[in-house]
Amino acid sequence: MSAKKNSGRGTVSAWQEEPAEILRVGPGFVLADVDPDSTPGFSGGKTEGKAELAADADLLSDTQERLFAASKGDATDAVLLVLQAMDTAGKGGIVRHVVGAVDPQGVALTAFKAPTEEERSHDFLWRIERRVPEPGYIGVFDRSHYEDVLIGSVRKLAEPAEIERRFDAILDFESRLGDRNIRVVKVMLQISPDEQKRRLAERLDRPDKHWKFNPGDIDERLLWPDYQAAYQRVFERTSTEAAPWFVVPANHKWYARVAVQRLLLTALTAIDPQWPAADFDVEEQKARLNASTV
Amino acid sequence: MSAKKNSGRGTVSAWQEEPAEILRVGPGFVLADVDPDSTPGFSGGKTEGKAELAADADLLSDTQERLFAASKGDATDAVLLVLQAMDTAGKGGIVRHVVGAVDPQGVALTAFKAPTEEERSHDFLWRIERRVPEPGYIGVFDRSHYEDVLIGSVRKLAEPAEIERRFDAILDFESRLGDRNIRVVKVMLQISPDEQKRRLAERLDRPDKHWKFNPGDIDERLLWPDYQAAYQRVFERTSTEAAPWFVVPANHKWYARVAVQRLLLTALTAIDPQWPAADFDVEEQKARLNASTV
Repeated sequence: MSAKKNSGRGTVSAWQEEPAEILRVGPGFVLADVDPDSTPGFSGGKTEGKAELAADADLLSDTQERLFAASKGDATDAVLLVLQAMDTAGKGGIVRHVVGAVDPQGVALTAFKAPTEEERSHDFLWRIERRVPEPGYIGVFDRSHYEDVLIGSVRKLAEPAEIERRFDAILDFESRLGDRNIRVVKVMLQISPDEQKRRLAERLDRPDKHWKFNPGDIDERLLWPDYQAAYQRVFERTSTEAAPWFVVPANHKWYARVAVQRLLLTALTAIDPQWPAADFDVEEQKARLNASTV
Repeated sequence: MSAKKNSGRGTVSAWQEEPAEILRVGPGFVLADVDPDSTPGFSGGKTEGKAELAADADLLSDTQERLFAASKGDATDAVLLVLQAMDTAGKGGIVRHVVGAVDPQGVALTAFKAPTEEERSHDFLWRIERRVPEPGYIGVFDRSHYEDVLIGSVRKLAEPAEIERRFDAILDFESRLGDRNIRVVKVMLQISPDEQKRRLAERLDRPDKHWKFNPGDIDERLLWPDYQAAYQRVFERTSTEAAPWFVVPANHKWYARVAVQRLLLTALTAIDPQWPAADFDVEEQKARLNASTV
């Protein structure tokens, strides 16, 4: 899918450059250089962003249906969207407004919390492997195996050597996903500390938002520089050709949403799923149906 | 929620009578008397139905968010929507167009297929219990434990005495769900045999629909009267005060969708979920946040 191209919905996209290219973490990437207020590649503002999101929702939904249908034939393709971010960066909004446009029957969503006792008794990838999407599905990880190298190192829950072992295990795991035709789209939503402060303050100001607030959110916030360094390390170690990272500036929620939608569309378009051929004799079944008076 | 009442979305509903009342299976109910072409209680046609569906989508979504939030406090309420129907009756459309309007983070959807070998090695309710929604969720069963008494009796997969045991087990199971504040909304979508024929014919006519067709669908179709009798038996045995059945005429897809949406809204409104109180000192956290310069 090239930028500026009519993406099949009857209007020309406001994307001037593809998020899959300009947001991709490549060699020499420096997280601190990303401006969370920026809107790379998109030619409009909030109004255009919302219009683009709405206009492409049907395209995303239709392409997902083809992905699902193709899995009823021989295709094994699936997509796995990995979402990582500091608190309040907007993961939930991505799930609600981007993923929410897709038929729920084609989505497998997992929100990973602190591991349970059973999960801790296995290797860190055990609970992850169990949630890898089946053929035809868009899997979504709200937090993921990357927590085990992020909070794992920031909170010193594991020794440095164990963190390194986990990085190697992650590379091996994601490489195997690629072998199984599961396209991994890894997204980090980047907000600024000031924007986080505003968003946490809103949760404290509004009684209908209190349930979203946890005092631990401020504990994590105080470790901001450590998390940024841990993310930088994650990008250097795990942004591969097969499973690259995309860092999405997220101070503007509308931008983050439309950018992640476009990244999903790019992944689906690359798969180019096809309606499967019937595995039955269509004419024979038409005759049977015609004769079936009940 | 009373019919004709403004349901909080700024417009007056087109419902003249509540689906929760007029579609409910009570004493003396006869499935054969239901007209699949009818649109009970609704004062408009397709245009008004689609408008109602769109207008109430936000209300459904907002109420679900409160249900979810309440579970972060002391509330244990959840909703379980059970969908049963003959093939092509529109279960998938309900999931996509009604449930799809809700934040995917608050929905737990399970499509039950023929049981696996592992599932068959347990009692029939084993796989069902594992998918009962957690507090705060809307659980959706696309097919359910009722298959074990429907196809179970029609296809003679179990002895009559075993079917009766299952009925008792289902009553006990659903009664326990009620004790856990899980509201069960059981919906059977009723289409006519002719309408099914048209819908199956469309799947055979359109190559992009072939993947939805299975020759076995016609085998099941030929057992139509047996399935109707089995459903009648299900309604007599299991439409209880706590977990009633609703039979929704479904030849008009728009009607079935807006009726099920209204049934969900009625269940959520009866719960009347409230934002939970903060379990932390709000002013103290505001002060911490203010001091947290990073």
